[in-house]
Amino acid sequence: MSNLWRVHTNKFVNERESIMRNGNVYQIANGYMGYRGTLDEFGPDELVGITLAGIYDRVGDAWREPVNAPNGGFTQVALDGAEISALSTGIKKHRQSLNLGNAVFERETEFKSKRKILKIKSTRFLSADQPNSGVIRYSLTVDQAARIRIRTGIDYNIWDLNGPHLLKLTPKKQDGILLVQGVTNETGKRVAVAEAVGLDFGKETHATNGKKNLRVITLNAEAGQTYTFCKYFAVFTENDPVTKPVSEAAISCVRQARALGYEVCLNQHNAQWAKKWEHCDVKIEGDDEAQQALRYSIFQLLIVAPVNGSANSIPARALSGQVYKGAIFWDTEMFMFPFFLYTCPEKAVELMRYRIKTLDGARRKAKTEGAGYRGAFYAWESQESGDDACTYFNIGDPFTKRDLRTHFRDKQVHISGDVAIAMWEYFKITGDDSLLLEGGAEVILECARFYYSYAYFKKDKNRYEILDVIGPDEYHERVNNNAFTSMVAKATFEIANAAVNYLKQRYPGQFKVLVKKMDIARELPLFVEAAGLLYVPQPDEKTGVIEQFDAYYKLKETTIEALKARMMHPHEYLGAGQGLAVPTKIIKQADVVMMLNLFTDRYSDKIKKANWEYYEPRTEHGSSLSACAYAMVAADIGKLDRAYNYFLKTAKIDIEAESKTYVGTIFIGGSHPAANGGAWMTAVFGFGGVKANAKQVAINPKLYKKWKSLHFNLAHQGDRFSIKITPKDVTVAADALNKSDHAFIVAGQSIVCTPGKLSFVKYHE
Amino acid sequence: MSNLWRVHTNKFVNERESIMRNGNVYQIANGYMGYRGTLDEFGPDELVGITLAGIYDRVGDAWREPVNAPNGGFTQVALDGAEISALSTGIKKHRQSLNLGNAVFERETEFKSKRKILKIKSTRFLSADQPNSGVIRYSLTVDQAARIRIRTGIDYNIWDLNGPHLLKLTPKKQDGILLVQGVTNETGKRVAVAEAVGLDFGKETHATNGKKNLRVITLNAEAGQTYTFCKYFAVFTENDPVTKPVSEAAISCVRQARALGYEVCLNQHNAQWAKKWEHCDVKIEGDDEAQQALRYSIFQLLIVAPVNGSANSIPARALSGQVYKGAIFWDTEMFMFPFFLYTCPEKAVELMRYRIKTLDGARRKAKTEGAGYRGAFYAWESQESGDDACTYFNIGDPFTKRDLRTHFRDKQVHISGDVAIAMWEYFKITGDDSLLLEGGAEVILECARFYYSYAYFKKDKNRYEILDVIGPDEYHERVNNNAFTSMVAKATFEIANAAVNYLKQRYPGQFKVLVKKMDIARELPLFVEAAGLLYVPQPDEKTGVIEQFDAYYKLKETTIEALKARMMHPHEYLGAGQGLAVPTKIIKQADVVMMLNLFTDRYSDKIKKANWEYYEPRTEHGSSLSACAYAMVAADIGKLDRAYNYFLKTAKIDIEAESKTYVGTIFIGGSHPAANGGAWMTAVFGFGGVKANAKQVAINPKLYKKWKSLHFNLAHQGDRFSIKITPKDVTVAADALNKSDHAFIVAGQSIVCTPGKLSFVKYHE
Repeated sequence: MSNLWRVHTNKFVNERESIMRNGNVYQIANGYMGYRGTLDEFGPDELVGITLAGIYDRVGDAWREPVNAPNGGFTQVALDGAEISALSTGIKKHRQSLNLGNAVFERETEFKSKRKILKIKSTRFLSADQPNSGVIRYSLTVDQAARIRIRTGIDYNIWDLNGPHLLKLTPKKQDGILLVQGVTNETGKRVAVAEAVGLDFGKETHATNGKKNLRVITLNAEAGQTYTFCKYFAVFTENDPVTKPVSEAAISCVRQARALGYEVCLNQHNAQWAKKWEHCDVKIEGDDEAQQALRYSIFQLLIVAPVNGSANSIPARALSGQVYKGAIFWDTEMFMFPFFLYTCPEKAVELMRYRIKTLDGARRKAKTEGAGYRGAFYAWESQESGDDACTYFNIGDPFTKRDLRTHFRDKQVHISGDVAIAMWEYFKITGDDSLLLEGGAEVILECARFYYSYAYFKKDKNRYEILDVIGPDEYHERVNNNAFTSMVAKATFEIANAAVNYLKQRYPGQFKVLVKKMDIARELPLFVEAAGLLYVPQPDEKTGVIEQFDAYYKLKETTIEALKARMMHPHEYLGAGQGLAVPTKIIKQADVVMMLNLFTDRYSDKIKKANWEYYEPRTEHGSSLSACAYAMVAADIGKLDRAYNYFLKTAKIDIEAESKTYVGTIFIGGSHPAANGGAWMTAVFGFGGVKANAKQVAINPKLYKKWKSLHFNLAHQGDRFSIKITPKDVTVAADALNKSDHAFIVAGQSIVCTPGKLSFVKYHE
Repeated sequence: MSNLWRVHTNKFVNERESIMRNGNVYQIANGYMGYRGTLDEFGPDELVGITLAGIYDRVGDAWREPVNAPNGGFTQVALDGAEISALSTGIKKHRQSLNLGNAVFERETEFKSKRKILKIKSTRFLSADQPNSGVIRYSLTVDQAARIRIRTGIDYNIWDLNGPHLLKLTPKKQDGILLVQGVTNETGKRVAVAEAVGLDFGKETHATNGKKNLRVITLNAEAGQTYTFCKYFAVFTENDPVTKPVSEAAISCVRQARALGYEVCLNQHNAQWAKKWEHCDVKIEGDDEAQQALRYSIFQLLIVAPVNGSANSIPARALSGQVYKGAIFWDTEMFMFPFFLYTCPEKAVELMRYRIKTLDGARRKAKTEGAGYRGAFYAWESQESGDDACTYFNIGDPFTKRDLRTHFRDKQVHISGDVAIAMWEYFKITGDDSLLLEGGAEVILECARFYYSYAYFKKDKNRYEILDVIGPDEYHERVNNNAFTSMVAKATFEIANAAVNYLKQRYPGQFKVLVKKMDIARELPLFVEAAGLLYVPQPDEKTGVIEQFDAYYKLKETTIEALKARMMHPHEYLGAGQGLAVPTKIIKQADVVMMLNLFTDRYSDKIKKANWEYYEPRTEHGSSLSACAYAMVAADIGKLDRAYNYFLKTAKIDIEAESKTYVGTIFIGGSHPAANGGAWMTAVFGFGGVKANAKQVAINPKLYKKWKSLHFNLAHQGDRFSIKITPKDVTVAADALNKSDHAFIVAGQSIVCTPGKLSFVKYHE
């Protein structure tokens, strides 16, 4: 079974593409920072990257993006004067692996140089217990006596897509601790990296050259003897909640880690990881391929879950680098948030706090976008302030090399509703209303206010309409009455009304304060009216199909093959007003089907089936968000083979790492946490058939034929459950620490799950 | 003075471009058909074209366009066996001219062939009295005795842009009359051309070959003797209101013409032309350049004025060919209609009848465009049925050779209001309400209905808005609250309300019938509300500038030079969603300024000045409609030098014929009747300062400094006036046949103009 908890490779391919992919696949992270799966001796050319969460910087007019820290994990060895590196030295043997159980990266390489064999082994992790710190154990062995020089320390040659972001980088050594400190270019925030070692051999000197702050350790190594040392590095920025200077914080952090030692640090780290998996693992018996892909997906989510109390969120490429500006998209709420909500709500709450923190940015965007709106128009690409990092021209035209005007930023208005829905889901599923009082209700009301200011009333049809938007299908810009967007807006009004009713009843004083502060009393009845009168395209009476937007049916019928055959350049974008897909019915990703999934309770299986079958052949899946929506709805309507194929496509995206990594000259490689979340949702909501609301959890198993069992965990209303589905029965184990009984409906049967008890329900497939 | 009534050239340049330009400059027409200014011996390669008004055809998926008739004016001479042609024979002398007084084209060429000199002279006109017919007098003289063969008849090698439109073309000779008959490809309408000659020399045989139906006349010509014959040709189509077959109609027409003879035909023709000029001429003393350009412009309008009773309109390139599909655009109502309205209302009424005739097409367009509208959405490019000939992809991208999606057809909604405004202007200025009863009121109400169905209500602003349109500035597509469009829509509601009030009071019975037929009773109060609550962008309180559309001010500031410097291909279009002008403030043509001109009474000089000065440097004048709007407003606000420059630019467009004639591979050459109308408007409304309403005519002279006098004619409320403006005084001569006194306000002084009397007012400039 160990292979299901580990990914590994037994070869090193000295090619840029392979090094880049391994950097993604073997990355580790701890929510505070990511560390790409590169080797100790690598540098910026091999895309070594320690990407920090929630701190951004911009150079000139280039894209604003997350800051990468100096690499405190650098080590390179010279054997008898020859520098050893996987890039230049002969390799006898190589293995690198990633332990999914605790996010520990390990490499073991046997080099052959000057007829001697040098074996290097290093193990590293970013502490899940002390998220500013990373720990590495590095050992080397030679087969013959040799002169060894180890250079280890902080490499501040930083890989940046649009840098340099850290200026005035200054190396220091002080009481045996290495320090590199710099300031961000844009706002002058200090960033410090400290490094300490635990080392009991050789002779150490200090050297700073080539933008490296290094210890140089020399020794005469004996044959067969293994020399091991441990490195502790820490990154602090002025975003961190520390009172002392970041350099001091970093220094004291590595000192403390060194004092604890490697084993203790690892144990603390492991304890955290054990808890994560206890709450989050999904087990699939009978299908190792699916099991490994799904677990890897969950792992990807766990490593990037924001640090508690940080109010950070998860960028579209997580912490695997600076791709997509490290920006937070709708991906987080719609694809990642459910995983956290149902497994570790303490992380879900951080994602929501991030939206509360950036509410002012969303307000600024509403005011300044177009002719000006009211309320909160959340950024399409959100960074720390909530102002939009998305440009109006964000796709290159390969024919003219000009940037194409797109409307992602100004017209993809469903983002605000996505946030409001997640905010309310948090309250519904956890039962925790504190978030509403701490800004959540304000976010919801500002989103409703935004939609009201965006909506128009069509008097002769007595309805509100949401006009001129982009739905999830980004190939068709500026459409009217997009089913997904309108439904999200309608739901936002409903949620706003529900929140108002709840607060009014439960917290009348605080509600009054909020209403006054927001000056929103006059608008509340309008939200009620809008919830009732907002037009959402309805299923056709005969076919059951919902038209994706006004006049979609008039677009040209074609096939994806025919469309692609018309492409004149491999990188030409199919949308943006003049793209090949624009005049056709070909869509980029699930749109109506995404809506049916998000609002699954509001539509019958018949409608879902009609739309799945209509839109699926017309979907190009030009986004990694698409497959899981089709997978979930397919499971829902019993198309389990199709669901399974789409599930695997989603779940394997990062472990197989076959996605394109360049569009034109733009690097877009990295991980896909939204697809990872989609894989989890497909397993639990799709095949597990879980649908929950505030009052109960329903489970309607849709187990895939190949699977002997599906075993997952759920958090609901502050309590925890472990659920195991086999082809014949469902077992719900309520945690012994649960506070109360819970209502479940399993395969149509109502049961009550009592703390510490197992409930067992047989069902017929 | 004769040169001011004639254009001519004394050389023949044997180059395609020159032949094409002369074909435009020297064209004649009579409303029924146009005949390009080509030479008798020319064929389709020289763009010989007899373009018919109001009959269209489509071949396959190509553009639908007007039908060109077989050329009944063909004649070619052979001298001692050698074919004589300006294309291949030595030319000793050549002169061709066009008499603007009566639209007679004349060419005189001395050829040198085999050391003999052949002099050819031909004179042709398309009868203004019998619009189906054309008449040619052709004579030849040799300086030495020679064997002459004249081939004359009907050439049915037809120049088509997207043909062939006439199928089954069959030649016949019957009782001395040549006939070619064919049927249109799309609808099988018969088209016949007959030809007769009056000839008293030589020996005639008949030949049909090379798609020519010819008389072959041979003679031994004596030196110095002039041989003259006359040709009469007639074109009839099944669109004509004739009861007999078109071939018979054509034959009997040419028989009759031959019986009358050349001189009588010419006299009848001239009588019509004398009347035209009597009513329509504008004289500018002291500025021959302006005089000739303006007269030529008026001439262009007169030759294409629709035949009385035809209910035809005028295409954007008039009858100079098939360019722009022979389609009728907003150009007609906004730029040509005023000329006819104020000089020959019997032509203005045809233009309006055309819109009544095509109302059903406009209704069909409303129903089928977008998600469907109600009322009348007039075609952007209208042909005989009123269905839209404009495609959604009508501009070629030079980079990909693909067609670009544009929104001319579906979003340039101001066209309906342009029609409604013209319809109401006809009633206001002529006092003739019969048109309202014959469909005019229905058109107006259907246009109002369309705007109501197009408009949205913004509840929180308590206003209607017109969203998602293209204004006259076509570089910025899909904008909200375009000042021009919204104002036109508002005016349409106002006009609809005024029409309702008028009919209700004056023709209550007919009004009731109309309301019932249209089932519109319930909607009439909505039009009143919409007229009051429709939002039109207002002048900024400080600057006076009106924002062209929502968020125009946020576009990038640049210069036209900087923009053009960024062009990578000379034919790249600056609009269409991704064009270089789209993200900038650079506009294609007058938009706000056009609105200020159209609604000149509603805005102060201060506002006009502010907007003229703001928008003028930002206007690229990528349309021939732009200059006259700037000219008129410039005259209005006293910028007379600028007005004059723009006036000349407009007035000289066709006489100088320097406009581009190809865009990519698409031929766009031909005449510019909208600019011609703009030239007239600038002279009369601009420099003449004429503003009229139903009750009175106001004249506020803005005479250009160079001009000694400006003398023009006006029709108002069924009566006629001749107005002469000098730098010091204004003389209004009321026609002796006028039915009543009329109120004029000249330079602020109210006067009464009594039939047959002169009124004289001094003013200070």
